[in-house]
Amino acid sequence: MSPDQPLTREKSWLSYTYEGRKGWKSLRALNLFRGMYHDVRRRLPYYWSDIADAWTYRVVASTIRMYFVNMLPAIAYTLDMYRRTGEFYGINEALFSSALAAMIFSVLGAQPLTIVGITGLISLFNYTIYDIVTIYEPAIYPNFMCWTAIWAAIFHWIVAVCNLCDYMRYVTDFSSESFGAYVGIIYCIKGVEELVNEFTTQGNTAGFMSTMIAILYFLTIYGLERLGSSTVWKPWFRGLLADYAYVIGTIFWVGFSHIPGNLKATHVSFVPITRAFYPTQPRGWLIHFWELDAKWVFAALPFGFLVMLLFYYDHNVSSLTAQARQFPLKKPAGFHWDFFLLGCTTFLAGITGIPMPNGLVPQAPVHTDSLTIYETSLRTISTSEGEGAEIRRPVVTASAVVEQRISHFLMGLLIIGTMTRPLLVVLHTMPAAVFAGVFFTVGWGSIESNGILQKLIFLARESRFIQRDEPLLTVRRRKIALYIACQAVGVAATVAISQTIAAIGFPILIIALIPFRVWIMPRWFSAEELDVMDDLTANNSAVLASLGGPPRFPGQPDNERFGLERRYSERGFGLARQRAGSIHR
Amino acid sequence: MSPDQPLTREKSWLSYTYEGRKGWKSLRALNLFRGMYHDVRRRLPYYWSDIADAWTYRVVASTIRMYFVNMLPAIAYTLDMYRRTGEFYGINEALFSSALAAMIFSVLGAQPLTIVGITGLISLFNYTIYDIVTIYEPAIYPNFMCWTAIWAAIFHWIVAVCNLCDYMRYVTDFSSESFGAYVGIIYCIKGVEELVNEFTTQGNTAGFMSTMIAILYFLTIYGLERLGSSTVWKPWFRGLLADYAYVIGTIFWVGFSHIPGNLKATHVSFVPITRAFYPTQPRGWLIHFWELDAKWVFAALPFGFLVMLLFYYDHNVSSLTAQARQFPLKKPAGFHWDFFLLGCTTFLAGITGIPMPNGLVPQAPVHTDSLTIYETSLRTISTSEGEGAEIRRPVVTASAVVEQRISHFLMGLLIIGTMTRPLLVVLHTMPAAVFAGVFFTVGWGSIESNGILQKLIFLARESRFIQRDEPLLTVRRRKIALYIACQAVGVAATVAISQTIAAIGFPILIIALIPFRVWIMPRWFSAEELDVMDDLTANNSAVLASLGGPPRFPGQPDNERFGLERRYSERGFGLARQRAGSIHR
Repeated sequence: MSPDQPLTREKSWLSYTYEGRKGWKSLRALNLFRGMYHDVRRRLPYYWSDIADAWTYRVVASTIRMYFVNMLPAIAYTLDMYRRTGEFYGINEALFSSALAAMIFSVLGAQPLTIVGITGLISLFNYTIYDIVTIYEPAIYPNFMCWTAIWAAIFHWIVAVCNLCDYMRYVTDFSSESFGAYVGIIYCIKGVEELVNEFTTQGNTAGFMSTMIAILYFLTIYGLERLGSSTVWKPWFRGLLADYAYVIGTIFWVGFSHIPGNLKATHVSFVPITRAFYPTQPRGWLIHFWELDAKWVFAALPFGFLVMLLFYYDHNVSSLTAQARQFPLKKPAGFHWDFFLLGCTTFLAGITGIPMPNGLVPQAPVHTDSLTIYETSLRTISTSEGEGAEIRRPVVTASAVVEQRISHFLMGLLIIGTMTRPLLVVLHTMPAAVFAGVFFTVGWGSIESNGILQKLIFLARESRFIQRDEPLLTVRRRKIALYIACQAVGVAATVAISQTIAAIGFPILIIALIPFRVWIMPRWFSAEELDVMDDLTANNSAVLASLGGPPRFPGQPDNERFGLERRYSERGFGLARQRAGSIHR
Repeated sequence: MSPDQPLTREKSWLSYTYEGRKGWKSLRALNLFRGMYHDVRRRLPYYWSDIADAWTYRVVASTIRMYFVNMLPAIAYTLDMYRRTGEFYGINEALFSSALAAMIFSVLGAQPLTIVGITGLISLFNYTIYDIVTIYEPAIYPNFMCWTAIWAAIFHWIVAVCNLCDYMRYVTDFSSESFGAYVGIIYCIKGVEELVNEFTTQGNTAGFMSTMIAILYFLTIYGLERLGSSTVWKPWFRGLLADYAYVIGTIFWVGFSHIPGNLKATHVSFVPITRAFYPTQPRGWLIHFWELDAKWVFAALPFGFLVMLLFYYDHNVSSLTAQARQFPLKKPAGFHWDFFLLGCTTFLAGITGIPMPNGLVPQAPVHTDSLTIYETSLRTISTSEGEGAEIRRPVVTASAVVEQRISHFLMGLLIIGTMTRPLLVVLHTMPAAVFAGVFFTVGWGSIESNGILQKLIFLARESRFIQRDEPLLTVRRRKIALYIACQAVGVAATVAISQTIAAIGFPILIIALIPFRVWIMPRWFSAEELDVMDDLTANNSAVLASLGGPPRFPGQPDNERFGLERRYSERGFGLARQRAGSIHR
């Protein structure tokens, strides 16, 4: 890693700033391409090290783990999308999209840690648009989606060129926790829907068997990940359990569903597959977008804008969490360049008729986690009582991250491999029940670790058993309740809207939480209260370099005081390992 | 409580001893009726207070909790026994037996805390004898069982009159943990069998639905009991959750199975009921035992002896755990008198053709627990680090036990009420799946809290995270492994034998663990090692008074050094609340 002299590095990083610039030069949107230029300039010197640093075991573990953590939910959403878009988007489209995204972002991305693929939200988007379009003219759906993507791509490029990603630095846990809770709830609902579908299409026997498998799959993964973060057995063995929990659980329960006898005799549904490398529908890979009426072309414009809004939040938050402060990262971020690339993949996805990929919120930090070298060390707290009086506690610290782009690239190759006939046949052996289990696992992971739930538990706990130095104790309970209530209203509104045909409007609600936090919240809460309860999501200096420096919050002058709660917890107990599905640690 | 002057009390208690007695008077078996006489003399003065002390809320909670914790497993075993004894023992027999035992032991028992009812082991016994008898002459089964019971009753009376219960003081956790693990494993197997039966008789749909309900029932009870022992919400609310976990879970999941639609349409099996107050088979309540051939009468003798052996261990261990040292009991025990009474109930059960009741190992301590007033207090450990440096920990202490016989009596009245037609119909709404869930809950509770598993976890844990004052650290790991291995061999042998027609021999194996512990183990382990790893099961002075004083173990002169491990854990974390199914805390 040649350019690793701290002084030079810091200096070159800090060159992207608007401090001290005057006139039109101080207006971010007018400095066209400035963010992208600095992203490339900052990141390019590390390109060779991104390959050279990759030859460690962690990259192998990471590749396998991410393949499962990326593909299982992607296929799960596709099952849902397939049914609800008139079978337009199938497994081949999903694999193609995932592979395309993995190849482009692993080779060209400025942030190769951010895993890009198919999310539940794009599935929600696609079938909601299907519901709307079929009211008027079902046949135009492919072309309409294509134009939505083209418009979205154009908006992406505008945002990237005009440095608008800079505003991501104002994202705090207030909105990203709400988003996490929203995503978690939607996933759990999807899991239930998957099981209901099993009852409806395959009958009661298949329904109950699928429900049983989904529950046991969830318990298996949850149990293995719990064991992985305990103190039984040797650290290397615990690490294996945590790394391969999804692999073990999936292979076991897929095999279980094929045991001859009652299990095999029950006709549960399996992943539907079609001819390898061909679109699901009888069409070519190129969408004939020039055949759409002009009125529909322009009708697609607002949808394209909404897609961009969704990706603006979803993709950038993925990158933020993949590069959060808890990970000791040494290489800089590049938000503008990556968002430009995302515009390109959106365009390609549009004209080939595949689902548009973007950053995976729950999975992106799992990738960094899988590359992090953790050490569980012993913390001895000596107490005042008698001889031998001490309390022993395991403290997890992250000593380094294997920052490279090979694991992402290899994962992409694996996905391309999956597109071939023999592996498609393997895919076909997977029962839908396993995917319902995936939904529950990822969804619950996102809810369990969520700050909203953690604060609720804090309020519920008997206060005499709470450590006296817990920062939340400095905030009045009423204020904590108000803070959670604000988040809960946001979550409830987005979940509710997602169940209607207005679902495509949900990115507006999520994005609206950012200005709400910046301008409204300080009227209700003091700076000290917000310091304790909220935290910057963009809290890593390697990240802020790409966002034009740290944010300035009205009424909260000192960014360093943010996140008291997180730092308190890390001081006492160390880091929590990233579980799949948890937004923050 | 009139006779509560400590000095007099202790003095009268200590009058049953063999210290300083000479000649034939020093031989326990020759002092006929001496134990029974002292049991009654010691306990009778408290009789009035057993009624007068009962007017508290805890008695209400205890009655309802014990009704569920007693009846649910009893019905569960009966479902099994009903199928496997040619439908001889049905629900009416089970209810009659439970009611009879509750009435006799609550009114006449010296240890009204010991809940007596139908166990899984007597079910195992009854159907194994059925398997054996039907090889020769199926028709004689009722009469043969009757004679088995008559012989068993006679052996009971001999044991009680000859003071042989005294040898129970040699029971240590070595054998009672093995017994607990054995019972837990058998329960889990029974749960699986119950579900397999659902698949076989009701078809796959019912099978999978039942499996789903059983798993969710288990998770419900387990989750509620976990919440009950956490520090969220107010103590009184947590207490409610812990007290009524079975009530809540059972009502919810029984209701769930009747929701119209797919659930109701699936024909799962329900508790089979017959005409109220009548035997399941067309017969009178009196068995015509005089109609059995003399050769069969004597063939029943060894079976009766085995029943006595089983009850000797099972019933007395129930009483021991119901009166363990962790409970601050003030009233004395009475093993001889109760074992005599057990002979009487065995006799009555025999001549009426109902299953023989005896002490319920997992449930008896739950009864005492439900009557115990727990206090969760705060323990602050000041540490050497910085300001505000302290660690807060909840410590559970038991301040008193509402020792009385009314809760046992009221529970008996509830069971009699269940025998009437309207409540039998309510019983009929309960799906067999719920009982599979009960088996899993009780079985897992017995395994999870078991000392064998705890020591295994100790061996698996990374030793650097173990507190340095943990007593097990003073024993070489090899020795701990050997100790567990001895227990595991005992458990494996009993579980294996239970699956064969030799199942009725299992009490011999369990009882054999006691002399093995007393004479063989000290050759392999030092006194210090046994002090740490083993503990007296009869460790309460109120109990030892009835057993003729503390035991003397060869090579372990000091009884007060026993149970270092338990005392270490109680010092640091307080008592663990009794969960249904856990033998020791």
